[in-house]
Amino acid sequence: MAPPPTFSNDALLHPPTIRWEGGVEGHVVLIDQTVLPSNYVELTIDTPAAMISAIERLSVRGAPAIGVAGAYAVCLAARGVTDTHLVREALQAALPAIRGARPTAVNLATMVDRMRHVIESSPALDGRNLRERILAEAQSIHEEDVQLCLGIGRAGAPLIGDGETVLTHCNAGALATAGSGTALSVLFQAWQRGTRFQVFADETRPLLQGARLTSWELARAGIPVTVIADNAAAHLMARGEIDRVITGADRIASNGDAANKIGTYGVAVLAARHDIPFHIAAPSTTFDFKMASGAEIPIEERAGEEVWRIVSDQPPPAGVSFRNPAFDVTPAELITGWITEVGILAPPFSDIR
Amino acid sequence: MAPPPTFSNDALLHPPTIRWEGGVEGHVVLIDQTVLPSNYVELTIDTPAAMISAIERLSVRGAPAIGVAGAYAVCLAARGVTDTHLVREALQAALPAIRGARPTAVNLATMVDRMRHVIESSPALDGRNLRERILAEAQSIHEEDVQLCLGIGRAGAPLIGDGETVLTHCNAGALATAGSGTALSVLFQAWQRGTRFQVFADETRPLLQGARLTSWELARAGIPVTVIADNAAAHLMARGEIDRVITGADRIASNGDAANKIGTYGVAVLAARHDIPFHIAAPSTTFDFKMASGAEIPIEERAGEEVWRIVSDQPPPAGVSFRNPAFDVTPAELITGWITEVGILAPPFSDIR
Repeated sequence: MAPPPTFSNDALLHPPTIRWEGGVEGHVVLIDQTVLPSNYVELTIDTPAAMISAIERLSVRGAPAIGVAGAYAVCLAARGVTDTHLVREALQAALPAIRGARPTAVNLATMVDRMRHVIESSPALDGRNLRERILAEAQSIHEEDVQLCLGIGRAGAPLIGDGETVLTHCNAGALATAGSGTALSVLFQAWQRGTRFQVFADETRPLLQGARLTSWELARAGIPVTVIADNAAAHLMARGEIDRVITGADRIASNGDAANKIGTYGVAVLAARHDIPFHIAAPSTTFDFKMASGAEIPIEERAGEEVWRIVSDQPPPAGVSFRNPAFDVTPAELITGWITEVGILAPPFSDIR
Repeated sequence: MAPPPTFSNDALLHPPTIRWEGGVEGHVVLIDQTVLPSNYVELTIDTPAAMISAIERLSVRGAPAIGVAGAYAVCLAARGVTDTHLVREALQAALPAIRGARPTAVNLATMVDRMRHVIESSPALDGRNLRERILAEAQSIHEEDVQLCLGIGRAGAPLIGDGETVLTHCNAGALATAGSGTALSVLFQAWQRGTRFQVFADETRPLLQGARLTSWELARAGIPVTVIADNAAAHLMARGEIDRVITGADRIASNGDAANKIGTYGVAVLAARHDIPFHIAAPSTTFDFKMASGAEIPIEERAGEEVWRIVSDQPPPAGVSFRNPAFDVTPAELITGWITEVGILAPPFSDIR
């Protein structure tokens, strides 16, 4: 395995999950998260279709990161176009497919809607100026995400006690955002403050974001990390080996119900049984106050092949089916607190409504 | 994928998980469960060391099946030996390593102890006759297991209601026994009686006994089976898509606490939260009344490489560790009933003590 390059974009050496290179005729560069940690590959993305494909196959994933990716994808829609009418037409035409690339995380829809608002509220701008304006908006969204991550880390870091063992599920790290992560930002900042702890990372089937991405990020930061099969968490909790759970979220309803990677709900049930605090870490942009409860959150179902691929590159035996829900909903009653950039909140979340 | 051969050893066409071929100088033939379902390979085992290796790497697995395998392994220890003293010496010398090949399932130790008892209680037999006597004992153990499986199926089949969806974890099927299985024997017999239901099979990381073995057995029996990642069960329960859980067990303590494949305990916690009946199906030979509770059951920890192998054939990144407990303990309070060959029992299990 080739050693990954050294990154320098902040003190914790976070990898550049997503970045825009160049001016209005520029393009996006993404880390291809499907091949980490065995391979470190950057993808150049220069069309909305390529970005949608990257989002669908999880080359870029994580609710905040795909919000930023969606905003940049809108900018790519008018690449090389100069005529003002054609620029507006290309931008408007691209919005629905980008917005719908993945359904569960609210950030993608929110950020694409924000781009739409800029387009529609700037009728006087010519093509060139409109393109500069929306690129500036996407770059604002990107920079805001960096700040949101830092704020989450600041708010959550004091929760972590010296000597604790923290369980996390999926990847809510720098790779899931344009900044330093959500759940992992809490851990990075706690570590920077000198708190010493260790982490169990659920491997997170089927796509192994925990085994591949969370372990990679934590190891690079020097934080001790142990990967477990998802189904081993209950046993470790029963043995008293887990003190705390922190995960990210893809969409949080008004009542606090949180959609996150499949398996999160089960971890929350187990944490409650063992009296282990269970926190969600997410920016205020992940809250969807239009939804009364988690029952309204759309849950993406992905191809069964993602489950089977681990077994064989041959087709499964005749008569064997698969189900592959990508997210689940953790009811608010199981969540100890919601760590956001403005502090650790609870319903009705009046600070961020 | 080559189609597996057709089996005819009983009405449900169960595969011959383990069999003895020949007389006292014979050998064992096993299905290599590590390569199913992509490849159907039979292994010829003719030394105790080869059987221990097959048990350790899970070519043969499942508490009842390794009990039978252990009994046959004792017979292999004196293969080709004729001198009475040397036969006894070879048999006695082989017992500890066979008995210790895996620690959690009680059946292996129980059946090896039963073989030891036959050896030690037959001091008058010469080498040839002793070898015939212990082979007969191993074959009795084998045949008893077939009958235990049928009894479990008979006792449990009436539980299954028409139209139900049943979740199972790991493989408690014909491949886990010398007969038709434990949890799956219940399903096979319910299906034979005309009950129509469907099954969710947890894939069961890290070694995927559910995705590879349970799905294969159920599909061959014509029972609709859908494989899910272990961490998807909670979501399906929350949606009301699971009516019942049945798993096997590797050791059951006096108070009913049951050790079974890692993840079983978590499924039981989830079932309790959703008011879903959770049954353990196991023969009376799986009860260990010498143990007061599950806290005394030894839990095997296996190599971390089994968890990592799914990600890459390269070593994991520096700084990433693994934990791989192979079993967990489900407390009796979460178990609705213990399905055995003599009926559906509850603590203190006076019918089988």
